[in-house]
Amino acid sequence: MPGLGDVTRGRLLFGGDYNPEQWPEETWHEDVRLMKDAGVNSVTLGVFSWAKLEPRPGERDFGWLDRVMDLMHEAGIGVVLATPTASPPPWMGHLHPDTLPVDQDGRTEWWGGRQHFSHSSAVYRRYAAAITEDLAAHYGGHPALTMWHINNEYCTFDWSDEAAARFRLWLQRRYGTLGALNSAWGTAFWSQGYGDWAEVHTPRHAHYMKNPTQMLDFRRFTSDMLLECYLAERDIVRRHTPHLPVTTNFMPLWVGQDAWRWAEEEDVVSVDLYPDPRDPMGAQHAALLQDMTRSQARGPWMLMEQAAGPVNWRGVNHPKPAGLNRLWSLQSVARGADAICYFQWRQSRQGAEKFHSGMVSHAGERGRTYQEVKRLGAELGRIGGEVVGGHTSHDIAVLHDWHSWWAGDHEGRLSGEVDYPQVLTAWHRALWEAHLATDFAHPEHDLSGYRLVVVPQLYALTDAAIENLLSYVRRGGTLVSGFLTGVADQDDRIRPGGMDVRLRELFGIRTLHEWWPLDAGETVECDGFRGTLWSEEIEADEETLVAAAFKGGELDGLPAVLRKGRARYLATLPEPDHLRAMLAECAAEAGVRPVLEGLPAGVEAVRRGELLFVLNHVRESVTVRVPGAFRDLLTGMNVTDDLTLGRYGVAVLKP
Amino acid sequence: MPGLGDVTRGRLLFGGDYNPEQWPEETWHEDVRLMKDAGVNSVTLGVFSWAKLEPRPGERDFGWLDRVMDLMHEAGIGVVLATPTASPPPWMGHLHPDTLPVDQDGRTEWWGGRQHFSHSSAVYRRYAAAITEDLAAHYGGHPALTMWHINNEYCTFDWSDEAAARFRLWLQRRYGTLGALNSAWGTAFWSQGYGDWAEVHTPRHAHYMKNPTQMLDFRRFTSDMLLECYLAERDIVRRHTPHLPVTTNFMPLWVGQDAWRWAEEEDVVSVDLYPDPRDPMGAQHAALLQDMTRSQARGPWMLMEQAAGPVNWRGVNHPKPAGLNRLWSLQSVARGADAICYFQWRQSRQGAEKFHSGMVSHAGERGRTYQEVKRLGAELGRIGGEVVGGHTSHDIAVLHDWHSWWAGDHEGRLSGEVDYPQVLTAWHRALWEAHLATDFAHPEHDLSGYRLVVVPQLYALTDAAIENLLSYVRRGGTLVSGFLTGVADQDDRIRPGGMDVRLRELFGIRTLHEWWPLDAGETVECDGFRGTLWSEEIEADEETLVAAAFKGGELDGLPAVLRKGRARYLATLPEPDHLRAMLAECAAEAGVRPVLEGLPAGVEAVRRGELLFVLNHVRESVTVRVPGAFRDLLTGMNVTDDLTLGRYGVAVLKP
Amino acid sequence: MPGLGDVTRGRLLFGGDYNPEQWPEETWHEDVRLMKDAGVNSVTLGVFSWAKLEPRPGERDFGWLDRVMDLMHEAGIGVVLATPTASPPPWMGHLHPDTLPVDQDGRTEWWGGRQHFSHSSAVYRRYAAAITEDLAAHYGGHPALTMWHINNEYCTFDWSDEAAARFRLWLQRRYGTLGALNSAWGTAFWSQGYGDWAEVHTPRHAHYMKNPTQMLDFRRFTSDMLLECYLAERDIVRRHTPHLPVTTNFMPLWVGQDAWRWAEEEDVVSVDLYPDPRDPMGAQHAALLQDMTRSQARGPWMLMEQAAGPVNWRGVNHPKPAGLNRLWSLQSVARGADAICYFQWRQSRQGAEKFHSGMVSHAGERGRTYQEVKRLGAELGRIGGEVVGGHTSHDIAVLHDWHSWWAGDHEGRLSGEVDYPQVLTAWHRALWEAHLATDFAHPEHDLSGYRLVVVPQLYALTDAAIENLLSYVRRGGTLVSGFLTGVADQDDRIRPGGMDVRLRELFGIRTLHEWWPLDAGETVECDGFRGTLWSEEIEADEETLVAAAFKGGELDGLPAVLRKGRARYLATLPEPDHLRAMLAECAAEAGVRPVLEGLPAGVEAVRRGELLFVLNHVRESVTVRVPGAFRDLLTGMNVTDDLTLGRYGVAVLKP
Repeated sequence: MPGLGDVTRGRLLFGGDYNPEQWPEETWHEDVRLMKDAGVNSVTLGVFSWAKLEPRPGERDFGWLDRVMDLMHEAGIGVVLATPTASPPPWMGHLHPDTLPVDQDGRTEWWGGRQHFSHSSAVYRRYAAAITEDLAAHYGGHPALTMWHINNEYCTFDWSDEAAARFRLWLQRRYGTLGALNSAWGTAFWSQGYGDWAEVHTPRHAHYMKNPTQMLDFRRFTSDMLLECYLAERDIVRRHTPHLPVTTNFMPLWVGQDAWRWAEEEDVVSVDLYPDPRDPMGAQHAALLQDMTRSQARGPWMLMEQAAGPVNWRGVNHPKPAGLNRLWSLQSVARGADAICYFQWRQSRQGAEKFHSGMVSHAGERGRTYQEVKRLGAELGRIGGEVVGGHTSHDIAVLHDWHSWWAGDHEGRLSGEVDYPQVLTAWHRALWEAHLATDFAHPEHDLSGYRLVVVPQLYALTDAAIENLLSYVRRGGTLVSGFLTGVADQDDRIRPGGMDVRLRELFGIRTLHEWWPLDAGETVECDGFRGTLWSEEIEADEETLVAAAFKGGELDGLPAVLRKGRARYLATLPEPDHLRAMLAECAAEAGVRPVLEGLPAGVEAVRRGELLFVLNHVRESVTVRVPGAFRDLLTGMNVTDDLTLGRYGVAVLKP
Repeated sequence: MPGLGDVTRGRLLFGGDYNPEQWPEETWHEDVRLMKDAGVNSVTLGVFSWAKLEPRPGERDFGWLDRVMDLMHEAGIGVVLATPTASPPPWMGHLHPDTLPVDQDGRTEWWGGRQHFSHSSAVYRRYAAAITEDLAAHYGGHPALTMWHINNEYCTFDWSDEAAARFRLWLQRRYGTLGALNSAWGTAFWSQGYGDWAEVHTPRHAHYMKNPTQMLDFRRFTSDMLLECYLAERDIVRRHTPHLPVTTNFMPLWVGQDAWRWAEEEDVVSVDLYPDPRDPMGAQHAALLQDMTRSQARGPWMLMEQAAGPVNWRGVNHPKPAGLNRLWSLQSVARGADAICYFQWRQSRQGAEKFHSGMVSHAGERGRTYQEVKRLGAELGRIGGEVVGGHTSHDIAVLHDWHSWWAGDHEGRLSGEVDYPQVLTAWHRALWEAHLATDFAHPEHDLSGYRLVVVPQLYALTDAAIENLLSYVRRGGTLVSGFLTGVADQDDRIRPGGMDVRLRELFGIRTLHEWWPLDAGETVECDGFRGTLWSEEIEADEETLVAAAFKGGELDGLPAVLRKGRARYLATLPEPDHLRAMLAECAAEAGVRPVLEGLPAGVEAVRRGELLFVLNHVRESVTVRVPGAFRDLLTGMNVTDDLTLGRYGVAVLKP
Repeated sequence: MPGLGDVTRGRLLFGGDYNPEQWPEETWHEDVRLMKDAGVNSVTLGVFSWAKLEPRPGERDFGWLDRVMDLMHEAGIGVVLATPTASPPPWMGHLHPDTLPVDQDGRTEWWGGRQHFSHSSAVYRRYAAAITEDLAAHYGGHPALTMWHINNEYCTFDWSDEAAARFRLWLQRRYGTLGALNSAWGTAFWSQGYGDWAEVHTPRHAHYMKNPTQMLDFRRFTSDMLLECYLAERDIVRRHTPHLPVTTNFMPLWVGQDAWRWAEEEDVVSVDLYPDPRDPMGAQHAALLQDMTRSQARGPWMLMEQAAGPVNWRGVNHPKPAGLNRLWSLQSVARGADAICYFQWRQSRQGAEKFHSGMVSHAGERGRTYQEVKRLGAELGRIGGEVVGGHTSHDIAVLHDWHSWWAGDHEGRLSGEVDYPQVLTAWHRALWEAHLATDFAHPEHDLSGYRLVVVPQLYALTDAAIENLLSYVRRGGTLVSGFLTGVADQDDRIRPGGMDVRLRELFGIRTLHEWWPLDAGETVECDGFRGTLWSEEIEADEETLVAAAFKGGELDGLPAVLRKGRARYLATLPEPDHLRAMLAECAAEAGVRPVLEGLPAGVEAVRRGELLFVLNHVRESVTVRVPGAFRDLLTGMNVTDDLTLGRYGVAVLKP
């Protein structure tokens, strides 16, 4: 199978989305000059070009793109060619209203924005296949072509009638019989028993709470329909160019896409990263997504989109202070990215995203943004040869699963304050701040290679996943789990006792009497720390160690943290400092050490292969102890034992 | 007429909604064992069983319910059989989309939740009547059957075309002529004059504020349509079983239902109570609803639903601390309940409410929840004989009327901060904290039996109601009224002068110059207290006593509290402590004494017949002075003059 | 052309909307008595009378209005007759659903409120023209008739199919070819290229951000469609009564109407003013709208609606304290109003606005509201002869343009905290608090008469507007501009460099590297003040004076205020005190002096012709230095050098 290595060939890819159709041809030549100056070696073309490529139904206008492809080839810039299927031309919705999605309130999503396609529309799929076929036939042999990019940020839901018809087929495949569906969905509750497949619908606006398993399956279905769209286009381009890798860019940690499943179908895993430059936890947020993407890729991956400056979809959109674009780009490289790309090359003058930055901003060549991009391009060129292809697995796995998230996200849950991404982030942050390098894994993955497995929250677990965890611990693994884990099965059916009996035995819980969620901002005192979000009324087994108890209040003296052998269970979410200390202790017991010891606050150390990346996320200079002798690939200078980094400074140390 | 007494026959009913269709038959036998252990003597069956009972249109499957009924009978447990009409099977909406409600924005309320029936749909009503008929015919003679429960929590609005057609008929009955409607709705304003009945609609989405009387009538219509649905089913079961009482459970203080009117049509008044276990005023909130329900019932009533632990529809859903379920159950008994029931018997493993607690929680038999339920069942069994059937009327009436609430609730009112239920609650709380036992009454009820009548806020009053109040005072009654009373007539037509002239004379108001609503959180200084929410620019009559004046600001020196003879008017809402003191003073003048004197904070005393219930709502032990010699029916111990109650403790004292 | 002077004829108009159709005829006679007592000399009839005038399609019932017109004539009260087209009768929507607007979510706006007409509906327009024709024919010769009032507060948007058809025609007129539209809208972005006019739609609900220029054009279209409706009716009445002036009342600073354009089509500019009596900046808010209206009118104008007391559409609606109605009425007179009118004469007893005050409140003749109205009427009568017709232009112009506002208001802008009306208000407030009298002007207006031109924020500027500003400065004018000015052209196409190069040269900006918007509540330190909302990363020209630099943070030392000759640019919004000081300094340099020097806080001085109005906006007495000898027209007293004003006091000083 082709992969990212076939494209990088020893170089870090550097570039971004290039939308020449927004500019007169004279600008294209200016673009090439600036790209070459900046070391750009890869651009993504055609993401939003459908209306240009197929101006009327069935017509083709490839001439302009031919010229751009040739121009890129002449300039030695590789092309990631996108299928343009994320944004159909206006004629499609106009001629075929059935290609437009419908929301749960029955509102059509009209053209005039983007992503206004129904994943379930047969007509849309037919048009998408046709343009993909013709693009692949036409450009498959073009020397500039290096990779395929299918669609863009797949992310649409659809409650339309055609989606409902496909949902029924999907459910028939999943359940076989209506009886099985009725059982899985628990339709005995509230008189929802289905007697005919035709009665089953997408979960539309209802008087009161909707059926949770119907909602869960609708999310599964959505991910699968979008995947079908992807696969159809992937298979077409693969047929034409079996030697070229195919990707589609993930919306990171987006709720609607089971990226574990999707990654299996990609030759290259790519992702879009947009941390807020003002967010004090922005670097950690990015690190989480980088760790997750690398784990999905099981090797080098592609940063398909980031912003050179501000985005334009937050309430207030902040630019990147000088140096931050470089710092965060190198952070991605440290965590396994072999391609650093942007949306987009040149900031648009018109349209909905003209305040979203580009590598060339409105200020143009002289602007700080382009000048920084240019310096970064040079640096990536310098280190590429030593970096590219390197992959490192870590000793700690954080378990994450979209299906569990979906199941736990129902409006009828006990606490609206418990937000899965926030819980996941809290746990990853604790590890990150303790400089403990982590992978992500699916609960059914082989965990035997890990010394420590961390479960922030897996509300719904299959039997296979539970057995996997048990077996992991049985074989000597160290496991730490947060609350609301193992509560439900794959159909969101509550396990007897409120938590799977095998897990209760594992953690030493005899009876889980009641869940005690906390109000927003409320904390609960425990031995040595304060808990947030949640508490539980647990009766422990005799052989269980109550590592910490609740203090005061209704749960006084009851276990907050249980330990039984190598398994720990946290019935609350400790405040950040304590969660970090607790996980550091678990890691130490499991024989896992931080990447570096004694790092100053705000400094991150990441190993990639034999290289050690040291990144300073604060605006003050810091001196870091790095025992040993290294060469900093960025400066070419030797570093022995001590390293001084300026504001937002980075060193890439080779022993 | 049959009544609750025909079912209780000397016992307090104890039990809850039982949904055996969610469980395999082996669980039913387990259920019976646990019910018997817990003293359960009544279960409600069939509330959400329509899809099981009528799996396809017109089919009947009663076999499973036969077995459950027989099982209950064998176990000596009475059955309250529900008509299943609150949640139609999916086939109904699928085959008959006209049975689905439509909201004011034109959105259909699809199946997949519950209560997705249009009260106006002829098709729905036909199906509902048919299944009711067959259930009544089939089970009317079953020995387990003790009572009928029609539908469940009637609460749907409907703006559909069929609802519009029924609305027109309802309006024709109310007004006779279009001219009368135009006059009542004040359609001369904004050019809304109707020239044809066909033009009259349910008040759908509009460009700007809707006609207030149209909104008012739409609420009246909604209550009446739901009542028609109830009556149709009630009349069917009554025909089959004239000896059995019929009920439907109220949503307490729900905006959409004129429960005074509904209660007249019930043999047993029943209600669902879900105070928040975390709410410091939870006990008072429950007391208000208990007082209101008892007043509607004019005798013992049925607590149809409460939660043994948490619910699942709040933002954060807290469980009940140990003892609270018992305390609040006995509080209902104290205020006249002869039946203590729950939603539901066994917590669901699936569906939208699987995090709503049950008498048997996910933790099962060993869980704290069931263990407490079991102890409570035993206690209720112990005191039932002394309690059941007892009814006590009180000397104070709080006036409440849904129509007045509806009229005052228009978007174009002077202050969105004035929320009727909050005002009602503030006044009831003042009485409750002063240990002054209260009934609720409708403003047109005979008030001659009361020593003190309290009007928190009756924005719209009919002439009959006004005459009723005048006559009450004329005959020596003491009346205290809050602001925004008597402002409008039954059509929401402002009374000349901004307040009915008879009431102005009664309270001593010569001219009501302006209303001065207060901003959120703002207070206004008055002699001896601070007012909240509202103030008024009033010119008093000469003979009126200004009991308190506003101090400072624009209203300096103007009357805040007026008194003329036995009538008082409050032009603001005093802060809680002062409102309590003021009402205590009024009560004292009217010769009404608190239930007990000198009660510690958080302790409530309630008389039911000759019994004195003392309830400790705080977590600390308290000692209460109870002059006299009693036997505590719960403990069997004698109590003389002093009573000590532990956390959440209760005593039921018999002289 | 007829104008306001033909109606006032030396008197200030005083009166309001009169809706006799809401009252029995006996009340009409009472009304006339109270009007005469209060000095009312003008009423507006018929605003919401369509259903009375045309009870069934095509029928006419003018009899009642004949009687009212005659009554007014007998009483010597002039009539401003409204076309009733703001609120069609129910039969229209019922018979012609296509006359109802549809919102962007596809929801119909039903009758039952007001303004439920589609500006694009041919049927609506036909009915509107017919009733207008008949009214004009019938009343054109009536001796009471003084002016025409077309419709009321034009303010509806419409996304319906018929609106879409008209939008296409409007776009065809604007752009000629689809190619031009595609270019202007930047449809190359996101694959939005239109290939057929039929594909172009009103900007309906979309999956993600809508096309900004489509949104901008939709707002232009809306203003133009409403204007078409106005013009059609205006032309009809003008044909019948060429000697009578025509107006329609503006919603002040309403987003949907280009009032500069509209004012050109009015004989009399009229406006509705509803400042919040509780708003500490209420007087300034009113002053801004008065200045804007006077500038649109280029002479005396009409205050068509204000409230004698509270309105009923705020969250909490406060009455006017004693004296405030008089104070704010005289403030309008000071700023050029020759007509002081109210909505409405008599407060309604029914309908959506029965809590909106009237000149005669619910309290009636004895109520404070009417008593104050009566005193005000007498005072207006006293000063009218000296005031009417007077007009004063000022030395300072604040530039304002709806199109620029619309363009800058897209959801994809950099900061949702930047709200155009707030920015405009902040700048006007600074001038107002410095007692610097200001006009408003459009950026393409002749500015040569102004000594100082202030641009709070003009995000989008045409080339003509830019040249106008350049030429103004070239000829010696002083210009001060806030940030986000000149960023885009008339199609919302970003100017190269992020700001027009001519403006950058004017202000001395070499490179605008990045915009740095501030978070809500955040401030940025500058030399001598703190900035709010915004900051910028600017590289200045060599010859530019950095009048103030940012201090600390990422922008440390970079220019916050640039000055180049007579042009200044503010890259942030200074806090109020500093913006006031800065503008006072600019004014002084430009030779503009405050109306009066040394005024106490809260006192406003306004010149109208030779008259000096002094208004005390605080509740305490103040003494004001007014050098010279005057007669106060209100009291008839002589004033020499010093003037003492009580709470809310006003003096109208004639030298």
